[in-house]
Amino acid sequence: MPEPFRVGLLGHGTVGAAFATLLDERADAVEAETGRRAELSGILTRSRGEFEDILDRSDLIVELMGGLEPARDHVMRSLESGRHVVTANKQLLSQHGDEIFEAARRGGVQLRFEGAVAGVVPAIRVMGESLAAAHIERVHGIVNGTTNYILTQMTATGATYEAALAEAQQMGYAEADPTEDVTGKDAAAKMAILARLAFNAAVRLDDVSYEGIERITPDDIGYAKDLGLSLKLVGSAERIDGGVAVHVYPAFLYAEHPLASVNGAFNAVTIESPAITEITLSGPGAGGLQTASAVLGDVVSAMIPPPSLPAPAVQQPIVTDVEFSFYLHLEVADRPGVLAQVAEILGMQDVSIRSVVQKGLGREARLVMVMHPVLESKFRAAVDLIARLDFVREPPRVIRVIEETF
Amino acid sequence: MPEPFRVGLLGHGTVGAAFATLLDERADAVEAETGRRAELSGILTRSRGEFEDILDRSDLIVELMGGLEPARDHVMRSLESGRHVVTANKQLLSQHGDEIFEAARRGGVQLRFEGAVAGVVPAIRVMGESLAAAHIERVHGIVNGTTNYILTQMTATGATYEAALAEAQQMGYAEADPTEDVTGKDAAAKMAILARLAFNAAVRLDDVSYEGIERITPDDIGYAKDLGLSLKLVGSAERIDGGVAVHVYPAFLYAEHPLASVNGAFNAVTIESPAITEITLSGPGAGGLQTASAVLGDVVSAMIPPPSLPAPAVQQPIVTDVEFSFYLHLEVADRPGVLAQVAEILGMQDVSIRSVVQKGLGREARLVMVMHPVLESKFRAAVDLIARLDFVREPPRVIRVIEETF
Repeated sequence: MPEPFRVGLLGHGTVGAAFATLLDERADAVEAETGRRAELSGILTRSRGEFEDILDRSDLIVELMGGLEPARDHVMRSLESGRHVVTANKQLLSQHGDEIFEAARRGGVQLRFEGAVAGVVPAIRVMGESLAAAHIERVHGIVNGTTNYILTQMTATGATYEAALAEAQQMGYAEADPTEDVTGKDAAAKMAILARLAFNAAVRLDDVSYEGIERITPDDIGYAKDLGLSLKLVGSAERIDGGVAVHVYPAFLYAEHPLASVNGAFNAVTIESPAITEITLSGPGAGGLQTASAVLGDVVSAMIPPPSLPAPAVQQPIVTDVEFSFYLHLEVADRPGVLAQVAEILGMQDVSIRSVVQKGLGREARLVMVMHPVLESKFRAAVDLIARLDFVREPPRVIRVIEETF
Repeated sequence: MPEPFRVGLLGHGTVGAAFATLLDERADAVEAETGRRAELSGILTRSRGEFEDILDRSDLIVELMGGLEPARDHVMRSLESGRHVVTANKQLLSQHGDEIFEAARRGGVQLRFEGAVAGVVPAIRVMGESLAAAHIERVHGIVNGTTNYILTQMTATGATYEAALAEAQQMGYAEADPTEDVTGKDAAAKMAILARLAFNAAVRLDDVSYEGIERITPDDIGYAKDLGLSLKLVGSAERIDGGVAVHVYPAFLYAEHPLASVNGAFNAVTIESPAITEITLSGPGAGGLQTASAVLGDVVSAMIPPPSLPAPAVQQPIVTDVEFSFYLHLEVADRPGVLAQVAEILGMQDVSIRSVVQKGLGREARLVMVMHPVLESKFRAAVDLIARLDFVREPPRVIRVIEETF
């Protein structure tokens, strides 16, 4: 009988505890799949266990501590000493990815991290394996369940952002301090990891520009509904002009887009490549058990080692000025020539209007427009000019629009 | 430099030709991923090439001939002589799966078949790898793009089945002889393969009961729309009472079901397991290039061999009588007591009514009902009795209804 495969566990919070239970429950299935029995060789918690001890007794280290230190130190030392590592730590991978991936290569070991990105959605595996030989052009993701839940509620009930957030907190979908989620930072870390995988590019969290959902109003969503659009916090990673662009932003999606129907605390990732057109993967965002299940899948895969290691990531230019469609919402005085002046400024910046709705409200009016795709810098320049017109009563509201490309 | 990895190709139709081109185009990416160069060692067509010759010169055989013979013979001999096999042949796997999987195990080689099931959707890999250690309870799939396209058109335009089929043929989404697709047989073969993988059960095409979409009317779809339901040809595979049930049937889906928004010639598979809740994978149904891409992904994976082979499939009971929700549409004479009599018969068979719509049409009336879940045999018995009532003017119409379970 082969030796058991020894798994050292760092961290014993919600996910760690769920993983320990699952590893035990599924031991027979793991053995049937891999030919070896996986067993816990030690657990490191804040109050218990010694990292060096556990490392000595393990073939693989599961890091579920979260945060940067001491997780970074432990992961680096595990890899350098020839242990496989499975982690669900998005902060760590998005901020220290280069050194960690390099350490895995030097150590000749596996580094797996399905649990770090999109809940139970196996985006990492599909990109790394099914699409290993495909050329991925673009990845769109809804990778934060909290914000998707809040936006879904705002859409369904007309609630304000503040009310929907409070409800999400009550339901356990948002944390007491929701900053990481609602500012888009959590999604940005995940998109940095996805972009690295998709393009083999050394993308860091700092390379991702992100916006959150804090300033979305029920009004935005109401208008969008009339146009058949639904609002999501979208992460996008794409190849542009020999470089890589990674963004997180609230965006309107046309109903045909595969992410448009992803509601509630769900995650989804759409991967586009010429050979496959597109694949969408969706499922519940991470709960403890779901993340633990992704981690166990990684452990099983690490027990079946591939003979070669992927090539090192390549430094690629980060492109920040990208073409988007935009939605523009203006509160204006209702007098003749307003639309003409706005249209003229847009035209001067090569911004072409795709559709426009004008509503009179007594002496005031509201202009809601959707543009054809245009370089963001040009559109922002036009909006800056428009904002200075004397008949524009409030700061213009701008949201991106995404169309289904097929 | 390592020896090249020699790939013998059987079949040079649409998919075969696309695969040969793709293998050449992506040779560098394959080498980067696996450390070896993959190259074609020979192509067998109807008029050219000798199977024995190609076998001798190959490490792996890609079978894209389709049909049962000589594909079965060539696949068996390839596996028995220690070659890996990648195939997209659903007929072969669903009808001769037992001997083919057994031959792969005896030969100690890999058998991969992502291209056989759901177009570009990586259902096989996700079930076999990400969920290797999960306990899959149920798989729902839209695995036939032709029928999904036809139903989507009927829903969007109110067209009849015949008109939508003609349009699908014109658009290239349906073949001149659409029998395999519209009867549900193609989907049944794919569900047999998915069920084998999901449950490690020896499921054959003959074990799958299937119904097609030929008798669906615009009327069915119209009523369903009023109830917020959308009609799909659904394959289901589930564990029931220690056995396995596999069906293909047209079904109404509630809007919240992840398959409800899968439209046009798309495929999608939802996998349910306690640990992961559910994952949905979706993408375009198989075109030549898409299938070729799935085949190439399999070739790349076969170049990275796992050290152990999965356990043999186990004979498990096939369960045919299963609980469903049902939609029942009755054309009746409009007179007092009709609904009461229908309800009484349903009640006698333990069928409980969830919602009912009655519409008067002069001297006639229409009853449309949705039931709570009930064993199919009981519901069918009730419908047989109802059909014999003198006020029932046409054969009752029955369609299954699927709810989101989470």
